[in-house]
Amino acid sequence: MLRIPFKEMEDTFYSILINEGLDEIKARTCARVFTENSVDGVYTHGVNRFPRFVQYIREKHVVTDADPVLKSTFGAVEQWDGQSGTGITNALFCTDRVMDIARKNGIGCVALARTNHWMRGGTYGWKAAKEGFAFICWTNTIGNMPAWGAKDNRLGNNPLIFAIPYETEAVVLDMAISQFSFGKIELMKMEGQELPVAGGFNEKGELSKDPVAILDSNLLLPVGYWKGAGLALLLDILAAVLSGGLATNEISKEGAEKNVSQVFIAIDLSKLHNTSVIRQTLQTIMEDYKSSVPATGTSGIRYPGEGVVKIRKENFEKGIPVNKKVWTEILKL
Amino acid sequence: MLRIPFKEMEDTFYSILINEGLDEIKARTCARVFTENSVDGVYTHGVNRFPRFVQYIREKHVVTDADPVLKSTFGAVEQWDGQSGTGITNALFCTDRVMDIARKNGIGCVALARTNHWMRGGTYGWKAAKEGFAFICWTNTIGNMPAWGAKDNRLGNNPLIFAIPYETEAVVLDMAISQFSFGKIELMKMEGQELPVAGGFNEKGELSKDPVAILDSNLLLPVGYWKGAGLALLLDILAAVLSGGLATNEISKEGAEKNVSQVFIAIDLSKLHNTSVIRQTLQTIMEDYKSSVPATGTSGIRYPGEGVVKIRKENFEKGIPVNKKVWTEILKL
Repeated sequence: MLRIPFKEMEDTFYSILINEGLDEIKARTCARVFTENSVDGVYTHGVNRFPRFVQYIREKHVVTDADPVLKSTFGAVEQWDGQSGTGITNALFCTDRVMDIARKNGIGCVALARTNHWMRGGTYGWKAAKEGFAFICWTNTIGNMPAWGAKDNRLGNNPLIFAIPYETEAVVLDMAISQFSFGKIELMKMEGQELPVAGGFNEKGELSKDPVAILDSNLLLPVGYWKGAGLALLLDILAAVLSGGLATNEISKEGAEKNVSQVFIAIDLSKLHNTSVIRQTLQTIMEDYKSSVPATGTSGIRYPGEGVVKIRKENFEKGIPVNKKVWTEILKL
Repeated sequence: MLRIPFKEMEDTFYSILINEGLDEIKARTCARVFTENSVDGVYTHGVNRFPRFVQYIREKHVVTDADPVLKSTFGAVEQWDGQSGTGITNALFCTDRVMDIARKNGIGCVALARTNHWMRGGTYGWKAAKEGFAFICWTNTIGNMPAWGAKDNRLGNNPLIFAIPYETEAVVLDMAISQFSFGKIELMKMEGQELPVAGGFNEKGELSKDPVAILDSNLLLPVGYWKGAGLALLLDILAAVLSGGLATNEISKEGAEKNVSQVFIAIDLSKLHNTSVIRQTLQTIMEDYKSSVPATGTSGIRYPGEGVVKIRKENFEKGIPVNKKVWTEILKL
């Protein structure tokens, strides 16, 4: 395991993306976000994912010179066409755009069709929350999860993000609708460990904690069983309908995961209350939450995003941990 | 088990509510919604819950002559004070209000403080979807679920609703963030059955399918374990901050579950596309979803709200099934 300083990782990504033909702004933005995701500990959508992003550029799934185009607008709702452009810059554009709309209208909704993987949904939640917004966004994905009672993958695990400012940071829930990501299950397989709770199905269709069995069946478990399956369906329907873009069943036909649909909703909190009221409400809630009585053997009560702040600090100081093989592969790109 | 015709149940509820001092419109509306919830098969928030609603009126938790008052507005966001009024009529008012805002602005958000239990969240989702809106709403509740790793109940199970029109009906996800409701767990206990999956914790803090053990510990399991716990926290924070109302920790101090906070978000789909585009998108998604390959031993692939339409038809024809003891109790109110 190497420890790569933030600046070195960002510069490495930047040079590679310039070589791949991204303009300076896009290369700088993507390099920064991939590095920030890594420094925050979300390696699966940071450094570990970077080679696949470059591959998607080379295979022309990501059209790097495309930018979002406004398709239609009514009041505080806008539909944009991402034109198969870069997922990160498209999603950042829509986050900025929806905050602008909310500054004028209190709330805004931007729906984005034909975009690419945004990597870590939390990126957009952290950004909007730190600028003072209550923020909800989600994306659909390729089919990677079964409907409840099914043995083929017709639902996406459609990550859903809720974010709100908290002190100088934020509370950010960044939640895929599968109980575990494939990345996590692969990690547990490599480490020869069982999952802590059922994370998918075995070939017989039984719930399983065995990463090998789940990877064999390719059937992930939705959070809350039938409930998460229902939630994933609704998130897909809303993303496709609001954006006028592709639904999971159509993305699955694309072969690669591209031309996904996303929704961004922001509410400008500064228009509702003065900041001290919000701060006070959050403080009261979090103090009560953190004073929960820990069950035996648990390691304390954390809120969504709390771990990120700690890892971020450590990785800034010590460098970002990267598997040596992954870093070597990146340097050869 | 009795079968009570829709009209008879509605008229019975109406007479009782008039006797309790509700005005004619509120009595008619509440009688209708309690009966509709029952005809749709949601007995826990219909006929079975009616006696407790009357008790809450008698104990003055529900202030039946109060109506929502506008607290503040900015653009397409409004904050209302429910003045501890009737939960059903307050929530219906906000559903109508947010649809009006969305008709003008594309999207609207109404946040409601100091209201009472809305009974079935799906009521508002079905209503808005059938009027052509994409609709999201949620409520916070009294503390009834532990944080992840905790053994006391500081989170609400904060039901979350997503709804969208589908053909002449709707797809409506009405999802409490606990894996099962207390009502369901009590039912399984009465029937002497295990839950199909873990639904809470036993006294040792272990995951359990045993309804008796869960009712003893009083610890429900959040959907998706740590994920649902995080989602419940965010829904509570957003409800309290957006409405300026009480958070779960404050509601828990009220003794009874009252003065809860709710959020309603509507998007007017007719402003985005013509109806045939939406119908086509939904049809494509649902056809693909329903063509999932069923796993062995499962009873078919259903979408959220699908079962409701079938039960509604049956209960309209045969009458609404009611436990004889419950109905006798109601007739004595």
